Amino acid sequence: MKKYPVNPTGDLVIKTLAMPGNTNSNGDIFGGWVLSQMDLGGGIIAKTYSPSGRVVTVAIESMSFINPISVGESVSCYAKVIEFGRSSMKIQIETWVYNYLARTQKIVTNGVFTYVAVDEHGKPILINKLVNHATR
Amino acid sequence: MKKYPVNPTGDLVIKTLAMPGNTNSNGDIFGGWVLSQMDLGGGIIAKTYSPSGRVVTVAIESMSFINPISVGESVSCYAKVIEFGRSSMKIQIETWVYNYLARTQKIVTNGVFTYVAVDEHGKPILINKLVNHATR
Amino acid sequence: MKKYPVNPTGDLVIKTLAMPGNTNSNGDIFGGWVLSQMDLGGGIIAKTYSPSGRVVTVAIESMSFINPISVGESVSCYAKVIEFGRSSMKIQIETWVYNYLARTQKIVTNGVFTYVAVDEHGKPILINKLVNHATR
Amino acid sequence: MKKYPVNPTGDLVIKTLAMPGNTNSNGDIFGGWVLSQMDLGGGIIAKTYSPSGRVVTVAIESMSFINPISVGESVSCYAKVIEFGRSSMKIQIETWVYNYLARTQKIVTNGVFTYVAVDEHGKPILINKLVNHATR
Amino acid sequence: MKKYPVNPTGDLVIKTLAMPGNTNSNGDIFGGWVLSQMDLGGGIIAKTYSPSGRVVTVAIESMSFINPISVGESVSCYAKVIEFGRSSMKIQIETWVYNYLARTQKIVTNGVFTYVAVDEHGKPILINKLVNHATR
Amino acid sequence: MKKYPVNPTGDLVIKTLAMPGNTNSNGDIFGGWVLSQMDLGGGIIAKTYSPSGRVVTVAIESMSFINPISVGESVSCYAKVIEFGRSSMKIQIETWVYNYLARTQKIVTNGVFTYVAVDEHGKPILINKLVNHATR
Repeated sequence: MKKYPVNPTGDLVIKTLAMPGNTNSNGDIFGGWVLSQMDLGGGIIAKTYSPSGRVVTVAIESMSFINPISVGESVSCYAKVIEFGRSSMKIQIETWVYNYLARTQKIVTNGVFTYVAVDEHGKPILINKLVNHATR
Repeated sequence: MKKYPVNPTGDLVIKTLAMPGNTNSNGDIFGGWVLSQMDLGGGIIAKTYSPSGRVVTVAIESMSFINPISVGESVSCYAKVIEFGRSSMKIQIETWVYNYLARTQKIVTNGVFTYVAVDEHGKPILINKLVNHATR
Repeated sequence: MKKYPVNPTGDLVIKTLAMPGNTNSNGDIFGGWVLSQMDLGGGIIAKTYSPSGRVVTVAIESMSFINPISVGESVSCYAKVIEFGRSSMKIQIETWVYNYLARTQKIVTNGVFTYVAVDEHGKPILINKLVNHATR
Repeated sequence: MKKYPVNPTGDLVIKTLAMPGNTNSNGDIFGGWVLSQMDLGGGIIAKTYSPSGRVVTVAIESMSFINPISVGESVSCYAKVIEFGRSSMKIQIETWVYNYLARTQKIVTNGVFTYVAVDEHGKPILINKLVNHATR
Repeated sequence: MKKYPVNPTGDLVIKTLAMPGNTNSNGDIFGGWVLSQMDLGGGIIAKTYSPSGRVVTVAIESMSFINPISVGESVSCYAKVIEFGRSSMKIQIETWVYNYLARTQKIVTNGVFTYVAVDEHGKPILINKLVNHATR
Repeated sequence: MKKYPVNPTGDLVIKTLAMPGNTNSNGDIFGGWVLSQMDLGGGIIAKTYSPSGRVVTVAIESMSFINPISVGESVSCYAKVIEFGRSSMKIQIETWVYNYLARTQKIVTNGVFTYVAVDEHGKPILINKLVNHATR
């Protein structure tokens, strides 16, 4: 049986509540919505390293859906850069939920997304690692 | 001229990116969307104090829109309980944005929302202050 | 026990049907959606007094959630200006629902929102009270 | 050249503001969104005549898109029953917009929708014409 | 009793899955959402005949809702041009669903929509029938 | 330079139009929306092999964003099963767009998603390969 971490790794980049409007036909939260949150979350980190403030997602290297998300749970994505290229960044992103009735936290997805810093025309530009990420 | 804080107060309860689908006819982010995020964010704290994990929003005491939000900025809500009643909680909620091009952070809204802990039938119940809010 | 009005006050500014896509995790209509409707509704009046047709919401002075809204009920917001400033307007907004099975109407929220007339750059401009509001 | 009415006919059943999130690739408001508003609006009248409060849309007899809708205009649907059957109602629905800069009102669509009153299992039931529609 | 076709007519122009966020208060898929899909689907064909790639929907000649759509069914719209004018096209559009549990396919709506080819200012232009529609 | 296919592989499982409401802050279509369409599209095939008609997405093995999608382009996902397990299926999914002005078709993403057939409680069940997929 696969072992999953008991605590999140990385910076908190997405936090919201799972709402009924985002469910799939099984009654759980729709996987595409979760992927959207992770993509936004990775972007929130990646954009700090782009001199233009712009990035594009170019790849997902791996992505696991570990547990379903229920309506009413809080949803948090944590992210950290695991590899820098000239224009690109590999970012590991985990999604965790907190269930208010069970009072328990658990990991629901993890993945590795690659972003590229681009200028206003969409052309790759050099990333700037010397950024202040106290806030973003 | 009114003075605004230079740093957020409270726990980070909402974090996301401002998207074009949430704009108003002025081209800025729609105020109703921001109110929705604040309401969710306050709920994320309030629910930890409700034995059933359920709360309802009953009032907004004050609410200021200080600056507009632009598409592409990251949006963060910070919240803290400022008063506990038997079933109710007053929660101060601030919204801050980070602009990736200007590399600046600023407050955009603040308000005080009141939530009431309820059971599964919507009836008020006593709140439980002795909760572990390391995660939520 | 607080007394609520039996009939709405003001002009009808929002009318729609409460849909399942707008529910919260309690199964009722999400408060943030209701706030969005009220904000739009106040704007529908405020914009008639702005020479540019543009306004921004700057504050909510008070706001009460009196009753929950159920899926399938019709939702109506009524609004009236209660105070004019040079650029600003205080607008009282009430939300009422009609339940088609019970055949009853009831108030669900009320609040006071402040709007400011702005030009196309977002700068405050003088409001024009001499408008024809037969239609808007 | 076709003549269009200068004033709406029927009861106000939908009122809202045209938002950027509802545009099509031409930059105008998406026709499917307008059809959705008209369908909701006809339902708001039809449901008052259904003893269960439930109706289904069964047909559109005619529907014209007369003018495009621009972002920032207020949108109003007016409806009236033009024919009653045993279970069915034909409802004429017009959509009008108000432009806050031009200070003009114009018709943008009209159509005739047919609704059928149904019970909780979706079976047709007799409509009740003796309803109080002071509020709905 | 009306007879409905056992197989779709025309090209597949819309295909998606019916999701809970698109339901009405009866628990079925909202008719306005289905109309939106049909409008998009007809546009996918109509745009191939417009030299600018732009069209507007001007009318619905007839439209029947034959069966409700349930959450979790796949939804397909099929369309074909049944009449060409100078700038306009009448397009017959059918919606079919596939239910994964019953393993059955059925028609749910059909209608005839009229589109007009327009330039970038919204003015009607001549359609071009000599297009390659191997892909669109 | 990487070579991409000139024609799609697999069955057409998603077809729609790229709308302004689904853009990101660069003005292109949001990657999370595209991921959602691919996830739905793979599910449309996977569900045909699940005796219950239910599946869950468990992993993405690889995923490339090759080109951005512009508003107004038609979007098509093509999918085919490339490996069957006892309960699981690996499905290759490609997204293609057609631009109505340039009259060109191009691939925009490809990926490999893994789905598992589940019963109504979410427990894995044996897939059934002997299905009729003439329609789905």
